[in-house]
Amino acid sequence: MAYINEHFLKLQAGYLFPEIGRRVNEFSQANPDKAENLIRCGIGDVTEALPAAVIEALHTAVDEMGNRETFRGYAPELGYDFLREAIAEYDYAKRDMNIGSDEIFVSDGAKCDTANILDILGHQNRIAITDPVYPVYLDTNVMAGHTGPADDDGQFEGIIYLPCTAENNFVPAIPDEKADLIYLCYPNNPTGATATREQLAAWVDYAKANNSIILYDAAYEAFIQEPDVPHSIFEINGARECAIEFRSFSKNAGFTGTRCAFTVVPRELMGYTASGEPVALHGLWNRRQSTKFNGVSYPVQRAAEASYTQEGKAAVRDLIAFYLENAAIMHERLAACGYTIFGGVNAPYLWLRTPAGYDSWGFFDHMLQNANVVGTPGSGFGAAGEGFFRLSAFNQRDAVEEAMERISRLK
Amino acid sequence: MAYINEHFLKLQAGYLFPEIGRRVNEFSQANPDKAENLIRCGIGDVTEALPAAVIEALHTAVDEMGNRETFRGYAPELGYDFLREAIAEYDYAKRDMNIGSDEIFVSDGAKCDTANILDILGHQNRIAITDPVYPVYLDTNVMAGHTGPADDDGQFEGIIYLPCTAENNFVPAIPDEKADLIYLCYPNNPTGATATREQLAAWVDYAKANNSIILYDAAYEAFIQEPDVPHSIFEINGARECAIEFRSFSKNAGFTGTRCAFTVVPRELMGYTASGEPVALHGLWNRRQSTKFNGVSYPVQRAAEASYTQEGKAAVRDLIAFYLENAAIMHERLAACGYTIFGGVNAPYLWLRTPAGYDSWGFFDHMLQNANVVGTPGSGFGAAGEGFFRLSAFNQRDAVEEAMERISRLK
Repeated sequence: MAYINEHFLKLQAGYLFPEIGRRVNEFSQANPDKAENLIRCGIGDVTEALPAAVIEALHTAVDEMGNRETFRGYAPELGYDFLREAIAEYDYAKRDMNIGSDEIFVSDGAKCDTANILDILGHQNRIAITDPVYPVYLDTNVMAGHTGPADDDGQFEGIIYLPCTAENNFVPAIPDEKADLIYLCYPNNPTGATATREQLAAWVDYAKANNSIILYDAAYEAFIQEPDVPHSIFEINGARECAIEFRSFSKNAGFTGTRCAFTVVPRELMGYTASGEPVALHGLWNRRQSTKFNGVSYPVQRAAEASYTQEGKAAVRDLIAFYLENAAIMHERLAACGYTIFGGVNAPYLWLRTPAGYDSWGFFDHMLQNANVVGTPGSGFGAAGEGFFRLSAFNQRDAVEEAMERISRLK
Repeated sequence: MAYINEHFLKLQAGYLFPEIGRRVNEFSQANPDKAENLIRCGIGDVTEALPAAVIEALHTAVDEMGNRETFRGYAPELGYDFLREAIAEYDYAKRDMNIGSDEIFVSDGAKCDTANILDILGHQNRIAITDPVYPVYLDTNVMAGHTGPADDDGQFEGIIYLPCTAENNFVPAIPDEKADLIYLCYPNNPTGATATREQLAAWVDYAKANNSIILYDAAYEAFIQEPDVPHSIFEINGARECAIEFRSFSKNAGFTGTRCAFTVVPRELMGYTASGEPVALHGLWNRRQSTKFNGVSYPVQRAAEASYTQEGKAAVRDLIAFYLENAAIMHERLAACGYTIFGGVNAPYLWLRTPAGYDSWGFFDHMLQNANVVGTPGSGFGAAGEGFFRLSAFNQRDAVEEAMERISRLK
C-alpha cells in the first residue's frame, strides 16, 4: 500500500492566498460591476517590463539555441560560470565581500531554494522563524515533519516563533532557547523592515556560539536605499561560518515570470552529524542540486547576466526607483489619512496598523468592499501579524494613484 | 547545533558521471594530442538546434516580456492553461487517453519531478527500482532515508531491485514481495528497451492489487517507432488508479538546455495514511508544487506549446528521425563488428554486451584508450548492468560516423 507523507495533512487548509482568492471571487460575483475595477495590492509581483539589456540578451541567446553551431544542451547544474562570476563580482566583491563564484549556486527561484535547503539538513534541528513570516519557511518545515500540529492560532508545535513587533522594529530579539536553524529575511517580507548591522551581528554571534545556521533571505536587497543598511549577511564578520544566503532576480530585474535566483553556501559552513562530526554543507548542497535539479534555462542565465551590465544595472535602478516611488506615494497618502505605516523605504512593502475596530481580516474585507482594493491581512503571515495589513508597491502608477484616492475617500 | 541529513553520507562517492569525468580528464592530460578528438557518446544530451517554430515562439514571448502591456509576472505554479491544454490534447486525447489539463503539472524538468515526488509520499513505503536504473530514482531515495547503507556491489539495503536482463528483454518480472512504489521507465534509459502492453498491464494489475503506485518515466516516448508499443502508462486500463507519469520536452523538442517537463497525476490516484485512509495525491502534489516551486519561465512555456503546432510537430519528428538514424548507423556498424546490441530502435540508447574479457569499466577504458570514444559503463547504472555498455545516439552525424569508424578499426 502506497503511503502518503501525512505531515501534509497538518498544513492549514485556509492557506493565505487561496483564502484571499476565495473572498475576492465571492465579492466579484456579488458585485460584477465593481469586479473589473478591483485594484490588487496583495501579491508581491512586479508589473514593469524586463530591462532592454535583458531582452536583448534573451534574443541573442535564443538565436544561439536555434543554430546547431551555438546550441547549448544541459546547463551545468550549479549554473554557468559566466553568471556565477558576474554574481560574485557585482553582488559581493564590489561590496567588499569575499564570495567565490564556486560558492554561488544558480537556481530557478529563491522560493525553491529556501524550500529545498531542508533536504540537506537533519530532522532533529530546532527551527526558529520570525512571526510574521513568509509562509514558505514554515510550510516546508511542516511538510518535512519538523513540527507537531497547529493550534487554534495556527502556530505549530515545535517551532520557535520569534515575534516581530513595532516595539522591536520588526527585528526579533535573540531567544533564550537554542535554535539550530534560524530563518531571517531583510529587507523583510511582509513588514518592509530592515535589520541593522548590529542586529545582524548579534544573530551571527548567537549562531556561532550555538553552531547554528542562519538561513538569510535577501531577495529584496536591491530596494535598500539607506547607506548603513547591510545588503548581505556576509557583510557581518563570521557569517561565512554560520549562514546561507538566498537571492533572486525576481524583484530587482523583474524576473518573477522569467525565473532565476541563487544561493550562497560558503565553503567554511559546517553542519553536524548526530555524533558531532562536522560536514561541509557546500558539498551536500552541490550533491543535492546535481541530483535533483537540472540547471536553469540557458537564455534565462544570459538574461540574468545582462542585469549586471552598465545598461542592465541602470535599468534595475530605474525599476527599483519606480516601485519605491509608488511606495512613497502610498506612504504619504496613507499617513495623511492617519494610518500608522511601517516599511516602504528600503522595501516594496508597506505594513499598516489596522485602525481601531478592525482586525486583519476585518480590514481586508473593509478595503475590499469599500475601496475595492485587495491587500494582504497581516495575520495571514503569523499570529504576531494580527492587527496589521500589507500593501505591495509593485503596481502600475495609475493603479497606485487610484487605490490611494479610493482609500482617502473612505476616511 | 545544526544537524545535517546524514543519509547523504550513504551515497556512493564514485557517482557514475563524476567518475567518468575523472577518467576522461586523466586520459586527456596523459594524451593531450588525443584529447581534442575524443568523441563523447556518454551522456544523453541533444546536439541539434531547437526547432524554428520553438525559436519563433521564444522570440515572440521575449518581446511580450519587454513590453509593460504584455509583460507577465509570476506564472501559475502548475503551468499556464495554454500549455496544459496543448499537452492534454496532443499527448493524451489524440491517443485516446482521457487526461484532464488540470491533471497535468508543468515543471522545469522530469529529473526534478521524479526526485521531488518523494516529498508527498511516506517514508514507510517499500521502494522497487529496476536494475540497471537511471541513478536519480535510487539516489533520491537514499537521500530521503528510505534505505540502509550500500553493500560492496553498491546495492542499498531495503530497496527491492528488479533485475532487467537480456533474458527478460529488460522488462522486470513481477516480484513475489510487495512493493509500494515502483519506478518504471519505458522506453528505457539505459537499456533502450520497451515494454509491451501486456507487460505494463501486468504491472498495473500488480499495483492495483497491492494499492501500490507506479512512477512511470516516459521521457523517451517520442522515440517509439513500432506501432504496438505503448506511449504512456495511461494506455493501460486501470492505470489512472495506480500511476503517475513523468514526461519531458528535453528529448523530443531538444529542451535539455531550455527546461520544460510535466507530470500527470490523475484525480483518482490515492495514497494512504498509516491508518489506511485514502488521500488523493493530486491535491498533495498541487500543494507541494504551489509551496516549493514558482512555475516555469513564461517564454519557455510558450516554446513548449510551439512544439505542438503543425510546424513544431514536424520538426520534432525530424529531430527524432535524425537521432534514430544515428542509432541505426551505430547498430549496423557495431553488429558488423560482432557486438551483441540491444535497444536503439525505439530509444536513443544502444546497450552493448561487452566482449569476452571485459567488464563494464574495462570496456570503458578500452574504448577510451584505443578508440578515444567515451561511453557509459553499464555497471554504473546498477549491478545487473555489469557486462554492458551504453552508447548514446544523441550526437552530430559526423561524430557518430567517426566513432563507428574508430571502433571498427579496433577489431
